[in-house]
Amino acid sequence: MRTIKLTLAFDGADFRGWQSQSQGERTVQGVLGHALERLTGAPAQVEGAGRTDSGVHALGAVAAFHTACALPVGEILRALNALLPPDVRVLAAEEVPGGFHPRKHARSKTYRYVISTGPIQSPFARGHAWHIRGPLNVPAMARAAEALLGEHDFAAYMASGSSVKSTRRRLLRLDVVEADAVGFLGMRITGGFVSIEAEGEGFLRHMVRNIAGTLAEVGLGKRPPDNPAHVLASLDRSLAGPTAPAHGLFLLSVSY
Amino acid sequence: MRTIKLTLAFDGADFRGWQSQSQGERTVQGVLGHALERLTGAPAQVEGAGRTDSGVHALGAVAAFHTACALPVGEILRALNALLPPDVRVLAAEEVPGGFHPRKHARSKTYRYVISTGPIQSPFARGHAWHIRGPLNVPAMARAAEALLGEHDFAAYMASGSSVKSTRRRLLRLDVVEADAVGFLGMRITGGFVSIEAEGEGFLRHMVRNIAGTLAEVGLGKRPPDNPAHVLASLDRSLAGPTAPAHGLFLLSVSY
Repeated sequence: MRTIKLTLAFDGADFRGWQSQSQGERTVQGVLGHALERLTGAPAQVEGAGRTDSGVHALGAVAAFHTACALPVGEILRALNALLPPDVRVLAAEEVPGGFHPRKHARSKTYRYVISTGPIQSPFARGHAWHIRGPLNVPAMARAAEALLGEHDFAAYMASGSSVKSTRRRLLRLDVVEADAVGFLGMRITGGFVSIEAEGEGFLRHMVRNIAGTLAEVGLGKRPPDNPAHVLASLDRSLAGPTAPAHGLFLLSVSY
Repeated sequence: MRTIKLTLAFDGADFRGWQSQSQGERTVQGVLGHALERLTGAPAQVEGAGRTDSGVHALGAVAAFHTACALPVGEILRALNALLPPDVRVLAAEEVPGGFHPRKHARSKTYRYVISTGPIQSPFARGHAWHIRGPLNVPAMARAAEALLGEHDFAAYMASGSSVKSTRRRLLRLDVVEADAVGFLGMRITGGFVSIEAEGEGFLRHMVRNIAGTLAEVGLGKRPPDNPAHVLASLDRSLAGPTAPAHGLFLLSVSY
């Protein structure tokens, strides 16, 4: 058996996330498994670097599968893209040692949360950015973000009802970036954008979206800049801000 | 009666263009008229700067309407955006002299046609760029484009079956722009992009899309760079390339 690592981009709008609990729902894992089965003739289980939520996008997600198929990886890439729907694309395929596990071996993941802050949201941002009528106080958000860096118990920023062994995680980077205009396929969309980029060794369920929702309230002046650190220390989910909507979140890359 | 000029952005994916011939089709003019009628209580006819085709997008389309409504223009803008679906937004509203006509008084319009040329099209470009597996010879395309500048009879680049008084138009600018990567809401999408930007005093039906389809064939080496000028001189639609698909075309702006 060979192990093949895939780098993927997908538009999350029409997916119920990476993996669903219920039968019959359209998931990224599901359409990949289906395409692989058509390609190789055998059922295939595709393991992901993480289970992105329903609606979340990816520019560089990572997955892996085992196969007896002898095709060169370039052929596998081309064939999979021919079999997959256009809202998910395989950007790269490579053979890796059999022990490779996309989740367990990930060193870090980088997410970006996109907020459009102008009074009017461009139709070209509407499926891929959270619209908050700003302005947002970006220096205050950046100050608040800094206090979340490093290893902490992030229980307050985890989706309620999640069960994990440990709620300690290490945030390596949490940048708040502002732009008056952003590119859209070589054109410019104006209106104001604030993005939050988070790199971490691992993330709890909804962690980036809960941090984004809390930082947004700092930006709006609803919370002082030192509040997100107090929320962190409280370990109390009910003190954090709202979960920012899934459609503003992008998994940018996974490092190994 | 006041005359109000609107600047609009819309994602063309779910519209049957600006205006349709058949009843019951969803058009930009239709949803605008409906929103205006809800706002002012009176039926309203919205005149556009041009009739964009089904599927074509706009970052800066212009329209105008007459109304007895006394609301300040800022209120009209806010109210219309609250009443309109999120795939069309009013970016600006201003009161103009009663004689203003968005089509007749337009000095020039600028369109951009976006082509993604990489082997794999990003899911985030799929609804807004024509995918041609390149590479495209951009210098050859630029040379071909230059020969179309100025005033000519563009009959060869008009949709067959169109009836207009004159097929003479003046192209003020026709740029071919290449990028290895383009921005997407502050992130980068790689894969190769070639855009064709056309400014003209007026355009025939499908003119930009037919020029784009012909220049793309130059880029692919299927036509020599001097061919589009010969096609122009022939006045024969059957000699031009295919009509590039609507979903790669954006109306960027209209000048007055």
